[in-house]
Amino acid sequence: MNASTSTQEYIASSAAEVEAALRESLPVNWNMPDKLREAMMYSLEAGGKRLRPTLVLTAAEAVRDDRRAWDAAMPVACAIEMIHTYSLIHDDLPAMDDDDFRRGKPTNHKVFGEGMAILAGDGLLTHAFYAVTQTAQRGVPPETALAIASDLALLAGVSGMVGGQAADLLGEQGLTTIEQLEYIHLRKTSDLILFSVTAGARVGGATPAQLEAVGEFARKLGLAFQVQDDILDLTGDESKLGKPVQSDVQQSKVTYPYLIGLEQSRELVQRLTMEAKQALAKADLARPDRLLAIADYLVSRDH
Amino acid sequence: MNASTSTQEYIASSAAEVEAALRESLPVNWNMPDKLREAMMYSLEAGGKRLRPTLVLTAAEAVRDDRRAWDAAMPVACAIEMIHTYSLIHDDLPAMDDDDFRRGKPTNHKVFGEGMAILAGDGLLTHAFYAVTQTAQRGVPPETALAIASDLALLAGVSGMVGGQAADLLGEQGLTTIEQLEYIHLRKTSDLILFSVTAGARVGGATPAQLEAVGEFARKLGLAFQVQDDILDLTGDESKLGKPVQSDVQQSKVTYPYLIGLEQSRELVQRLTMEAKQALAKADLARPDRLLAIADYLVSRDH
Repeated sequence: MNASTSTQEYIASSAAEVEAALRESLPVNWNMPDKLREAMMYSLEAGGKRLRPTLVLTAAEAVRDDRRAWDAAMPVACAIEMIHTYSLIHDDLPAMDDDDFRRGKPTNHKVFGEGMAILAGDGLLTHAFYAVTQTAQRGVPPETALAIASDLALLAGVSGMVGGQAADLLGEQGLTTIEQLEYIHLRKTSDLILFSVTAGARVGGATPAQLEAVGEFARKLGLAFQVQDDILDLTGDESKLGKPVQSDVQQSKVTYPYLIGLEQSRELVQRLTMEAKQALAKADLARPDRLLAIADYLVSRDH
Repeated sequence: MNASTSTQEYIASSAAEVEAALRESLPVNWNMPDKLREAMMYSLEAGGKRLRPTLVLTAAEAVRDDRRAWDAAMPVACAIEMIHTYSLIHDDLPAMDDDDFRRGKPTNHKVFGEGMAILAGDGLLTHAFYAVTQTAQRGVPPETALAIASDLALLAGVSGMVGGQAADLLGEQGLTTIEQLEYIHLRKTSDLILFSVTAGARVGGATPAQLEAVGEFARKLGLAFQVQDDILDLTGDESKLGKPVQSDVQQSKVTYPYLIGLEQSRELVQRLTMEAKQALAKADLARPDRLLAIADYLVSRDH
């Protein structure tokens, strides 16, 4: 078993734990319409690599090498997956990207209708903050839980992901500069990765200096991740990706390969990953190995 | 000047303070698309009575009769107005109620397009939680700020307002029972009023017994408020309401007057208001008079 296989197995095993927690994240005794619950769970359970929650959990254990740090971080891991899932549901709507399929399954609004899809997204977004507040039941100090909630609102909100979505919606091929593209990528993708790593580190009890170093790691990694996504959309294997390739081209979306070419984009991914790993070395973590392995895995992934 | 005029002036003066705070609630130095900011502010500034934020501020001062309680509660007052505003933007979308006008102005999606309206709503929802975390900068203990964030997620989320919106979307005239209608009203409207009063009381430093009593006050008041809204939709003056009357009838919406008749609905409003005021008496507040006056004002309002 080589290092990459071992990392894939680690991610798969973490994903299985996250999925078990997600299934219990909406209490069964809550009085809410069945259809709403069904719509939320449909997209929450639609799979994906659960990369963001795995980064939360891994960062918590990287700072404090103790299974209890992992367990305490689980509500935050669920929260970021709810945020990611809501953003996909809203992004797929006819008024946005108008996608009929996601991960090989019909998109939320194709199954439940547009109105319910909007509400399922609103519900997941709101419930993510509930999940964050639940860390206080797991021994996380209230001021830490509050800092995580504040980070989430900033990085998933108008100064983060929602801002990126809006810039993306406004942008059109030929009109977007490399600076605008970087803004869109940083906000749409990198900010959630930044949140995941930082929030996990907070649960683990990171010092301000550690938070700064893992933050730099996450920013570089997040941008590398998005550029790699752009590359895979152009060159990837449809059956592995679970979505049509070249959908960006068909939708006239501006991407890194479009702006700087495929080879330059590949070099950029390599450089950003190296810089990310260098930043992490400065954090003096109890257990950095898994974070480093995930960084390597992300550059070499083919889906 | 009679009591009712004085209450109206109090609400108007509070609304002016809330509006000033809302204008500063999105920091000007945040890097976000201008169009997104414009779309959010368009609906935030579209007026309304600012009743929910006024309840937050009034409840804070009711528990602790000190201007500092009012000031500390202002971020929460802004938060609940952001939640209320986002719910109106999403509710007006073609996939939901499909309304072209709101408070006499074109709805958000008519001005900014559906995609941007969805994002403006998502942005306001997320930013509301950021505002709640900011109370910690105003002397509110972190565990109190966290309890407020948790309440907001519960009462504005799937077990609260979003659940009510979903039930409303699924309901159809003739199929809805009085129990279902009460569920929809409690979730869609009463829960935000419950949040406003409870969160304000928390900022004021309420004891558990006080929180329970003001909670009962708010539940009754919230339901009375919604029944009164139903009555005004049927009988009100279009120019005062700022929206077409009988829109519920035209949209085949189930309302209290439709289910139990107009006179019975009016009696229900009176009874709920009386019960609300009785509940408040048990809270032993430093300054209950403004909350009682607002309750009376809400029953007698004509818009």
